[in-house]
Amino acid sequence: MILDKFNLRAQKISSLLCVGLDADFEKLPPAFKKKEFPQFEFNKFIIEQTVEFAAAFKPNAAFYEARGEQGIKELKMTMDYLWEKYSDVFTIYDAKRADIGNTNNGYVVSIFDWLGFDAVTLHPYLGSEALKPFLDRADKASIILCRTSNPGAGELQDLIMDGKKVWQVVAEKVVSTWNKNNNCMLVVGATYPEEMKTIRSLVGDMTFLVPGIGAQGGDVEATVKAGINSEKLGMIISSSRGIIFAQNPAEEAKKLRDEINKYR
Amino acid sequence: MILDKFNLRAQKISSLLCVGLDADFEKLPPAFKKKEFPQFEFNKFIIEQTVEFAAAFKPNAAFYEARGEQGIKELKMTMDYLWEKYSDVFTIYDAKRADIGNTNNGYVVSIFDWLGFDAVTLHPYLGSEALKPFLDRADKASIILCRTSNPGAGELQDLIMDGKKVWQVVAEKVVSTWNKNNNCMLVVGATYPEEMKTIRSLVGDMTFLVPGIGAQGGDVEATVKAGINSEKLGMIISSSRGIIFAQNPAEEAKKLRDEINKYR
Repeated sequence: MILDKFNLRAQKISSLLCVGLDADFEKLPPAFKKKEFPQFEFNKFIIEQTVEFAAAFKPNAAFYEARGEQGIKELKMTMDYLWEKYSDVFTIYDAKRADIGNTNNGYVVSIFDWLGFDAVTLHPYLGSEALKPFLDRADKASIILCRTSNPGAGELQDLIMDGKKVWQVVAEKVVSTWNKNNNCMLVVGATYPEEMKTIRSLVGDMTFLVPGIGAQGGDVEATVKAGINSEKLGMIISSSRGIIFAQNPAEEAKKLRDEINKYR
Repeated sequence: MILDKFNLRAQKISSLLCVGLDADFEKLPPAFKKKEFPQFEFNKFIIEQTVEFAAAFKPNAAFYEARGEQGIKELKMTMDYLWEKYSDVFTIYDAKRADIGNTNNGYVVSIFDWLGFDAVTLHPYLGSEALKPFLDRADKASIILCRTSNPGAGELQDLIMDGKKVWQVVAEKVVSTWNKNNNCMLVVGATYPEEMKTIRSLVGDMTFLVPGIGAQGGDVEATVKAGINSEKLGMIISSSRGIIFAQNPAEEAKKLRDEINKYR
């Protein structure tokens, strides 16, 4: 089961921390900008700084696509590096994809087979029939957007039908019918701890990918208490800017890992 | 207004047809597979065969990403070719993106500025606040997924709140508040003509991108009658496999262009 890969790593290093490899070219330190492969070199530096505290790494596609084919090449170099040196670390492509039916095969090949990610984030709007090429890959995780961390998330997600909000319906559908291969997870933003509590009550021990800590304002204590599952696992808590652009990324990663553990 | 670009082209060649450049490598004729840039060479061939009947071209990202950096390079070559030879043809990146807030800037740069597309397809699930970087680009079109063409589209899109289905709510929100820059369009599948009729009644003359004709089973007459707007425009009707992998792509494109015009 793909979830075991994350859980084993999390238990081995006692960490639920995911480091977001959002290597925004504009924000890279000048020394990296000058290199032949700036995003790859920066990622390598961040990986070495933080890997002992990181259960997972999560690059966001937008920062690599912004540089065209060069960015994609450096993302692939990053994944090859991770795979060679740290193959037990869980990897998530924060690509927020979802097309219809077989068109998704192109993404499946690209994300799971070529880049070699363990997991990808997906939009639920087209339904599970459309996502079948992802969901059928029992060896990989499909992380469905449920309650996102952005301030305006509620515009559609808070619509109410039969007394339930859309994010509740998504959570219930994923746990009851989309998760046949035990390979589904949910994106639940740290900025909405009350909603997270409700989702935890709906989906048993299903694992959450949790963005929104740090720069976006999510509180660690409230988040961990709302989301932790019965095995003291079930959360992949992600921080990007707060760690990777800090003076001392290792220190920031350790601090957040420890703070999460304090409330686990 | 970016919509003018499509309308001018549509009127100039009397066509609402969009040719989907879904250059699936596995399906390319053997003669193209052997070339140095197989997807680009195939696209060039299809463009030359069909451009006189095509108001728009629409590559789907998945088929290019499946080949990693090489695919992205050939997509860029395709866009450069179109831009140089046929800059009046409307171009849509069927990428179905949507991240939160500023993260979308990476996609905006990549899709609008580097690749040079006129429009991109977007998921609505995160709300308009998240899509701001796209919506703010008044010089480019944001095409929001409303009612998709896949058989399982209804799983989330047909949920009912206050007597309205989710796709109705999306249509109303886009027309009333997301479209401040007159740069929004909607994806409405040809496989759901009844829903298309309702959406037309809700959004005035807003333009629809219409997938689902041909291989997916959408009927041309029913689709055109349901979706055409008061100016005999308002539809970008897309066909991919049915044209690009036909024995004679030019003939198929002409046939569909003419059939659409018959019911306009």
